[in-house]
Amino acid sequence: MKIFGKSYRTIWFESNICFMIDQNKLPFEFEIFKSDNYLDTVEAIRNMTTRGAGAIGSAGAFAMAQAAINSTEHNYLQEIKHAKLIIEQSRPTAQNLFDATNRVYQKAIISPQNAIDEAQLIANENSNDGENIGIFGAELLKDGFSVLTHCNAGWLAFVDWGTALSPIYKATLQGKKIFVYADETRPRLQGGRLTAYELEHQGIEHSIIPDNASAYFMSKGDIDIVIVGADRIAINGDTANKIGTLEKAIIAKEYGIPFYIAAPTSTFDKKAKTGADIPIELRNEEEVRYIKGISKGKIIEVMALNENSNCLNPAFDVTPAKYITGIITEKGIIEATENSITKFLDC
Amino acid sequence: MKIFGKSYRTIWFESNICFMIDQNKLPFEFEIFKSDNYLDTVEAIRNMTTRGAGAIGSAGAFAMAQAAINSTEHNYLQEIKHAKLIIEQSRPTAQNLFDATNRVYQKAIISPQNAIDEAQLIANENSNDGENIGIFGAELLKDGFSVLTHCNAGWLAFVDWGTALSPIYKATLQGKKIFVYADETRPRLQGGRLTAYELEHQGIEHSIIPDNASAYFMSKGDIDIVIVGADRIAINGDTANKIGTLEKAIIAKEYGIPFYIAAPTSTFDKKAKTGADIPIELRNEEEVRYIKGISKGKIIEVMALNENSNCLNPAFDVTPAKYITGIITEKGIIEATENSITKFLDC
Repeated sequence: MKIFGKSYRTIWFESNICFMIDQNKLPFEFEIFKSDNYLDTVEAIRNMTTRGAGAIGSAGAFAMAQAAINSTEHNYLQEIKHAKLIIEQSRPTAQNLFDATNRVYQKAIISPQNAIDEAQLIANENSNDGENIGIFGAELLKDGFSVLTHCNAGWLAFVDWGTALSPIYKATLQGKKIFVYADETRPRLQGGRLTAYELEHQGIEHSIIPDNASAYFMSKGDIDIVIVGADRIAINGDTANKIGTLEKAIIAKEYGIPFYIAAPTSTFDKKAKTGADIPIELRNEEEVRYIKGISKGKIIEVMALNENSNCLNPAFDVTPAKYITGIITEKGIIEATENSITKFLDC
Repeated sequence: MKIFGKSYRTIWFESNICFMIDQNKLPFEFEIFKSDNYLDTVEAIRNMTTRGAGAIGSAGAFAMAQAAINSTEHNYLQEIKHAKLIIEQSRPTAQNLFDATNRVYQKAIISPQNAIDEAQLIANENSNDGENIGIFGAELLKDGFSVLTHCNAGWLAFVDWGTALSPIYKATLQGKKIFVYADETRPRLQGGRLTAYELEHQGIEHSIIPDNASAYFMSKGDIDIVIVGADRIAINGDTANKIGTLEKAIIAKEYGIPFYIAAPTSTFDKKAKTGADIPIELRNEEEVRYIKGISKGKIIEVMALNENSNCLNPAFDVTPAKYITGIITEKGIIEATENSITKFLDC
């Protein structure tokens, strides 16, 4: 997708160097981070220079390739095994990361070049999955539609295209006029920062709204459809996604507005029978209390709440399948039911 | 109520000086603002040194009294009429402000001392209403209850006691253990700042949560009751309150959690048959984009979102009566139905 009119991927690999758009600095500054060794790439995953399910997976794949390239010949297998463990510890809950490191490791056994090829393949697959989600999802979007989305499930969270935003990009390319309401998505404000940044640079008309305002706009009939991403989907269709997704789903159902999840097949967790099997990460309360922004041209953090009060910071919630109209995957749109998901995964 | 163990009102009047807790600086700094003339008091209403329905009404009353005191004898009536217009323009949508200026004006015609007495009476009534709301509301709170509240409808929004928080204060004084979940309440964060500050200084156990997290806690069964304030209540029970109230009401109903409005009788608008008759104020988008906080001991603002994106900032929403379990008033708890409200207002 485009930034200042130039095409980029979120993360890419050339001449053994891993390049990534520095997402810690967006939307305030646009910078490309470069790493020529796997330890620096791991640190970039850990400190969230890159973030989002698909982007983390590809970063892990490229880190594995760098480990293979730089391993000494006589100790090769032992060194890449060691690197694999370090890479996997960078974001221990990211399902995509483990898939990626395992795939690249199997090829690294053969040769470093095979590892590089596999990592490139993983990144390309991720981009293609996003594009196909866009093609299927665009069928849901009529000309003139207003879409509500939550958090950032755009191309910045993947290698390219993204999930929840991809149908909007495809529909726009098809000549449809689409308007997006972007929930700002406290506490980390990924909607008001990354989603808004993406939409601005793709020339999509949009407004940022406080998370509190979505029921107001839904009650007025201003929203035609809700599309969000997913972190993990259970076999019965219950879906874990960014905190607040459950609120939007319940309200959408109350007002009869279709509510869709957009996610690649790799998001389904065969081990999770229902949402109750998905653990919810409670993150640091400082993420709520401190807010990053620009003041006099510098990125700084301010303490914005009552300092002596405790804050609770659940990072995700689980939306029961009954609130979900459908799941947009790279192979088509399916129902959020056990029957439909089981059949889909068996194909 | 108490700050650092010492009793305060939000606003008070002594020797012709209007004192108010500076709410622009809370929770970062505790300062008392003083004004000895009506124009400075008006400016304090306008720039939100004092805010909240009850506090604005009393500030307007004290400003009227100051205008009467300082008016010249030969031009007395003309000068206080002129002052009344200026005071009313400070926050043109605040219903309580007009009630207060009209009441004090009627007494100011007699003498400045009568104006002062009426203004003091208005402030005392506001405090008593809050205390009585607390007494009735406390009956709803069982020992060990967890209460969710939105925005700040505590004593800082009134002269003392407040509305939504008053039942919590009374129940605690009765020896019940109450826990409060305070929605931080974007965009202005009154929950994470003022409600949390009040609760801390009254020694009430609480946590601030991002607005996105309330469905998560409701779905887990962690919340026993929701109590919020109101800016205006229509005759059929539809209630305008801080943006996000509608979301919490819909979600509470979905999980079978009682949802109460706490407000004095003066909040009912006899001219509003339903919520459709209540205008919703769209405020400046900069309130969303810029966030105030403390950095290195100084209060500063940061630009926290994607700068070139438009933001929408509806300040209130209307919660239909069907989501409201009851309304806690200073005279008792009533149903949110036209029948019940009409009977109540006729008494």
